[in-house]
Formats: sequence, C-alpha cells, structure tokens
Amino acid sequence: MNTRRTFLRNSATIAGGMLLGGIGAKSAERPGPGTANDFWNVLAGRRSVRKFKPDPVPEADLIRILDAARTPPTSGNQQPWKFLVVRDRASIEQMKEACVLKYLESVDGDKTTKPETRERSVRNRLAGYFSAPVYIVVLTDNNSEYPAYNHWDGPMAAGFLMLAARALGYGTVFVTDAIPDSVTKAVLKIPDRYTRVCITPLGVPDAWPDSPPKKKLGEFIAYENL
Amino acid sequence: MNTRRTFLRNSATIAGGMLLGGIGAKSAERPGPGTANDFWNVLAGRRSVRKFKPDPVPEADLIRILDAARTPPTSGNQQPWKFLVVRDRASIEQMKEACVLKYLESVDGDKTTKPETRERSVRNRLAGYFSAPVYIVVLTDNNSEYPAYNHWDGPMAAGFLMLAARALGYGTVFVTDAIPDSVTKAVLKIPDRYTRVCITPLGVPDAWPDSPPKKKLGEFIAYENL
Repeated sequence: MNTRRTFLRNSATIAGGMLLGGIGAKSAERPGPGTANDFWNVLAGRRSVRKFKPDPVPEADLIRILDAARTPPTSGNQQPWKFLVVRDRASIEQMKEACVLKYLESVDGDKTTKPETRERSVRNRLAGYFSAPVYIVVLTDNNSEYPAYNHWDGPMAAGFLMLAARALGYGTVFVTDAIPDSVTKAVLKIPDRYTRVCITPLGVPDAWPDSPPKKKLGEFIAYENL
Repeated sequence: MNTRRTFLRNSATIAGGMLLGGIGAKSAERPGPGTANDFWNVLAGRRSVRKFKPDPVPEADLIRILDAARTPPTSGNQQPWKFLVVRDRASIEQMKEACVLKYLESVDGDKTTKPETRERSVRNRLAGYFSAPVYIVVLTDNNSEYPAYNHWDGPMAAGFLMLAARALGYGTVFVTDAIPDSVTKAVLKIPDRYTRVCITPLGVPDAWPDSPPKKKLGEFIAYENL
C-alpha cells in the first residue's frame, strides 16, 4: 500500500473542503471581509485554495483569524500554539526556491523527461502555492505543559484558523509535503523546540474551487459497535 | 518535567474554550437547537462541558453534527474518519465501571485514603462525564489511503464536530485520559484498524461553564522569525 502521497501524482497538496450534505458541490460565494457569517455557511464554503490574488490581508483580519485559531479545546488548558506569520517577500521566494531544488533533487534519476521540462513543471505547480501575500506556519511548542497532547491540540488550531479565514473571505490550504517541514525550518530558522503542524498561505482566492467528490455521510457513521 | 497529565490532579480532563478576545469570560448563552448561528459566536461560545442534562439529542441534530465533522481539510481527500455513536445505556455504564476500576487499580498502593473514600471520589468525578445521552468516539481508519496523515485529519474532525454541536446548543468535551482508549476499545469492541482521536459526550449542558483563563493573544504570534 502506498502510504505516502507523491508530489507529482497528487499535486503535493492536501485536498479538502465540501459542501455540507453534498458531493462535488459547486463554488461557494465569497462573502466580503468582515461580514457576519452563518456558521453552517462558513463550514460549507471552506475550500483548499492553491492560487491567490495579490491583495494584502489587513492586519485586523489577520489578528481576528489568529485569535480564532487559539480557541480549540486544549489539553489541560495548555494552549501550546505558536503562529509564525510570514509576509516578507524575500523569505517567501526563498522557500519557493528551496522547494524547487528539493523536488528536482528527488527526481534526479528520472531519464524520461528533460531537466528543463521537469523544472518548468515544478515551478508551474508551485507558483500558485507561493502567490499569497501571507503565510502562517502553525506550530506547537515541545516545551508546553503537556507536550504528549500537542498532536491533538495542533491540528485543531489549524482547522479553526482555516474556518475563521473563510468567514472573512480568505482562502487557505493545509500544506505539508508541497512545502516540506525542512524548508520552513531552514528558511525561517524555526528552533527545534517547535513542531510544525502545517504551513498555510492566506489570501483572497483567485477563485473558490469546487469541492472534490466526497464519500457518502453514512460511510462515516457506526452505531454502538464497529 | 511532568509531561503526562494526572487524573487526580487535573480532573482527568481536557480543558478548553474561551471567549474570543477575552480572558476568563463569563458563561455564553445557549442558542436553541436548530437556530442559525453567527460563526464568531459559535467559536466564542464553545466550552468543555462535563455535566449534562438527560435530554435526548434528536437524530436530525446528531446527523447534522456528524455531517459537519467530516468537512475539515483532509490529506489527499482521503476522509479517514469514523464516528462511533453510543447511546446504549448498558454500554455507557460498562464504560463508567471500567473507568472506576482502572483508576482504583492505578492508586492501589495509596495508603493515605481509605479505599471507600477513593472510590467515592472517583465515582463523583466520573458521574458528570457519564451523564450525557450520547457519546461519540472519533476514530481514524489505519487502512485509509494515506494513514501517515491521519494524525492531522483526525483532531480536525473532532474540533469541527465540537463547533457544530455548540452551534446547535450542545456541549462536548475532548476526552482522552478520563475515559482511556483501552476502555472504549474493550467495551465497544473497536477493531485494531481504528485509532481513537478522542471520545466526547454530547448533550445539553447542565450549565455552560465559564472559560478558563487564557494566555494573551500576543504570546501566540511571531512575525517573520521565532
């Protein structure tokens, strides 16, 4: 069984999002930033976004999103989160170049395509990921009160962050492989005491993508026994 | 450093919840089931609830909550979740008795309190946890398409589930230690192919607790570098 996803085959992305109760739902409308939102619409409208407009994210919106990100349940109230906000264009370009290099090294033995073709392909694929005005690295602190519980607290913060971003009209995507841990660690000089949950771009989507096809709800539910 | 939480000292619970932007916020109001909710109010109003009214949860509400729970970002669109719904009172009581036994075994060498006192204390502590009409075990399937990514997908589903429950006026709590993995596994006969994220009671709260004190927002945020 292939237990690791492959950059080339799967676009190196974390897909996600759905319309509640529907399958392969059409694009959600984008409410204007700051608009009050019905909870269910926010859930149904969240998508994994991989191409952004260059419009900046106002600081007030960013703060509101990070304020939401630190509200999930947290083990013994430890709140082990750290949100590293990256807007410096030089750092973002440096991450992109490191990703290109890392990918090209990994397919160095490939004789079926020319190196230039491979490089063009990976640059095209990464361009959208690096088109956002802001990046947030979601981290947990290994020196938190109960670090053995961070693996639960961390992803919930990322999920809440993504919902809050959607409520304000911004796209995100839960990135792991497309921008490897080693790249964010090296470029952003993240100390060993932090564990990365994910990195997400944050910005106004170029478009709100349709939801990928989803399993039927019944497949997820069991009553009393499995 | 104490990296594991202790049942006695920490009430064996996962604390959580906060009022957005506030610290030690007062109880949130409970919107009636089925009411449309503003996203930000739902976030601010979620609490970890540990005592419930016996009122049943209508099937339509349960389904709506589980429908929401399967909407987070998911690695390669794998959707590895399983939600085991437990309403059978005999199973719930069996879990409670197994928890009591497990706890009493763990403090068997304690000579400072009488066994009866210890048992009364643990029963009192567990009574609230087991007062809900419904329990949901949040699981991920080790046979999913990309199981190495389940540890991210799983907690996000639990977080979304808890927000949706709050939107419909129900309380939850992210339980790990208070109802050990071994107890749910044995009583509910959960096959090895599933990994438990947590178990949560689901019901109308006896009261909405205040938020525990929270760190300042600024402590979570870093810009450009750590």
